[in-house]
Amino acid sequence: MSARLIILGAGSALPTRNNFPTSQILELREKQFMIDCGEGTQIRMRQMGLKINRLGHIFISHLHGDHCFGLIGLISSFGMLNRTADLYVHGPAGIAALFEPQLRFFCEGMPFKVIFEEFDAKKHAVIYEDRSVEVTTIPLKHRVPCSGFLFREKPGERHIIRDMIDFYQVPIAQLNLIKKGADFVTSEGNVIPNEALTTPSDKTISYAYCSDTAYSEKIIPLINGVDMLYHEATFAESEKSRAKTTMHSTAAQAATIALKANVSRLILGHFSARYSNQQILLNEAKAVFENAILAEDMMVFDI
Amino acid sequence: MSARLIILGAGSALPTRNNFPTSQILELREKQFMIDCGEGTQIRMRQMGLKINRLGHIFISHLHGDHCFGLIGLISSFGMLNRTADLYVHGPAGIAALFEPQLRFFCEGMPFKVIFEEFDAKKHAVIYEDRSVEVTTIPLKHRVPCSGFLFREKPGERHIIRDMIDFYQVPIAQLNLIKKGADFVTSEGNVIPNEALTTPSDKTISYAYCSDTAYSEKIIPLINGVDMLYHEATFAESEKSRAKTTMHSTAAQAATIALKANVSRLILGHFSARYSNQQILLNEAKAVFENAILAEDMMVFDI
Repeated sequence: MSARLIILGAGSALPTRNNFPTSQILELREKQFMIDCGEGTQIRMRQMGLKINRLGHIFISHLHGDHCFGLIGLISSFGMLNRTADLYVHGPAGIAALFEPQLRFFCEGMPFKVIFEEFDAKKHAVIYEDRSVEVTTIPLKHRVPCSGFLFREKPGERHIIRDMIDFYQVPIAQLNLIKKGADFVTSEGNVIPNEALTTPSDKTISYAYCSDTAYSEKIIPLINGVDMLYHEATFAESEKSRAKTTMHSTAAQAATIALKANVSRLILGHFSARYSNQQILLNEAKAVFENAILAEDMMVFDI
Repeated sequence: MSARLIILGAGSALPTRNNFPTSQILELREKQFMIDCGEGTQIRMRQMGLKINRLGHIFISHLHGDHCFGLIGLISSFGMLNRTADLYVHGPAGIAALFEPQLRFFCEGMPFKVIFEEFDAKKHAVIYEDRSVEVTTIPLKHRVPCSGFLFREKPGERHIIRDMIDFYQVPIAQLNLIKKGADFVTSEGNVIPNEALTTPSDKTISYAYCSDTAYSEKIIPLINGVDMLYHEATFAESEKSRAKTTMHSTAAQAATIALKANVSRLILGHFSARYSNQQILLNEAKAVFENAILAEDMMVFDI
């Protein structure tokens, strides 16, 4: 299956002429997942003419304004547009208490429920799961509890090798188990390993979102080998000490993580407003990891 | 003196490709006043490259999201930019309770105070006053307590007619009183009326903001003769019954108010998202009141 990543905002704390604060939409297995929701998220969606009727879950990385101030406006507009499907907002502990009072006041009588699901940003855990997709938290290193998200397609069934099934005369009733990976035991008691009967399931897609975070090698095993990594790159190397103080990353640090985690592609984002031209960030990243690209508001990436 | 009105958002509840929700800045007597602060207000300011270091007071008409969801982001950014001057937010009763908890959480440790000053939206009263400017509420007719705002320059001093002052030998000590409108009594006891000694002070500028509101003739005496009236024009005449139900105005109704209140110029705004082209609103308004114009995001009007 293919997937799409839609960048709604690639900026950081202060918006600029070109960059709204952080928000993106991941389209995966016919579903839409929103990641962070900075101020103006719904405006960018409108500007792009995006239909988001398959959005059921929003994931908020941390409780800094540039990652969540767009929530109330987005939800409020859903109400005006007569959305009926419940909306789940996953966020660090405390998010419900912060937003529920305003929701009660501004969104009273909406035809759908907003359900906050809080997670522990310090733990690596599955926080969402359906038949085809799984989302796990990636504990990050920031000034407040902050978590990235790993979106991973669940593996589909293995593909049966028809000739081998016929050869071993596998009963039809057992095929489903074999597609799921079971070995086959013949009537003579011989074990035929699954690998002899099937080929692997289709490759699954994985996408990791890591923002905001200081350079942290702890995340490397959690995101190892993903198809696409979005990693914050707030600063250039010249601001490395500022990156450390504010617990952000430089572009080269983001690229180092991408390299060490052996990811296929790196998207840089969350740019400081000081870079009206972000080419320096790209250059510094590419010196470490070639397959890097700059996020831009309203850009769409195929994964 | 001259004044400028800067439109940051001319849209209504749902943002569109071109229109952010409502916000504007009035520049008057070296000061900046913000009126309403919908989502994305700070983004529009950045896109325009606006400097707003003379902004001390924000006036919120009512507690619907498209008029106040930008507050928290704007204030939060002021904090990051190390603003030190206190910021006053004037709004209907209830505004402090709605925003203070988020401010405490997201804007902790900011180098300035945010002071909420609540007003009774049903009363016509002065809510702000300094040496040169006065702001009064204009009770509007909407689904929730809602108030427009009348900004008026205070009259300056009258201009002395030098020849007459010499002729009557007015002592210098009395000149200040005479500039303020006092008559002069000669040593023989003759009263020289002020009008014989002075010419009127310079014309003062007045601006009235009326959004959101159903058609309401009650506001006419309150805005009579203003230099510029911003009146909401959410709908065209074809949606007149919807305007009534939702307590909004049609463009023709806005124009009727402008005509009856004898204002100099009418700016239409707060357009429903259904009008991708707002020419019909302008045409319907102009049929009633010729000196009407459509607000557009990032437009600047001299008053």
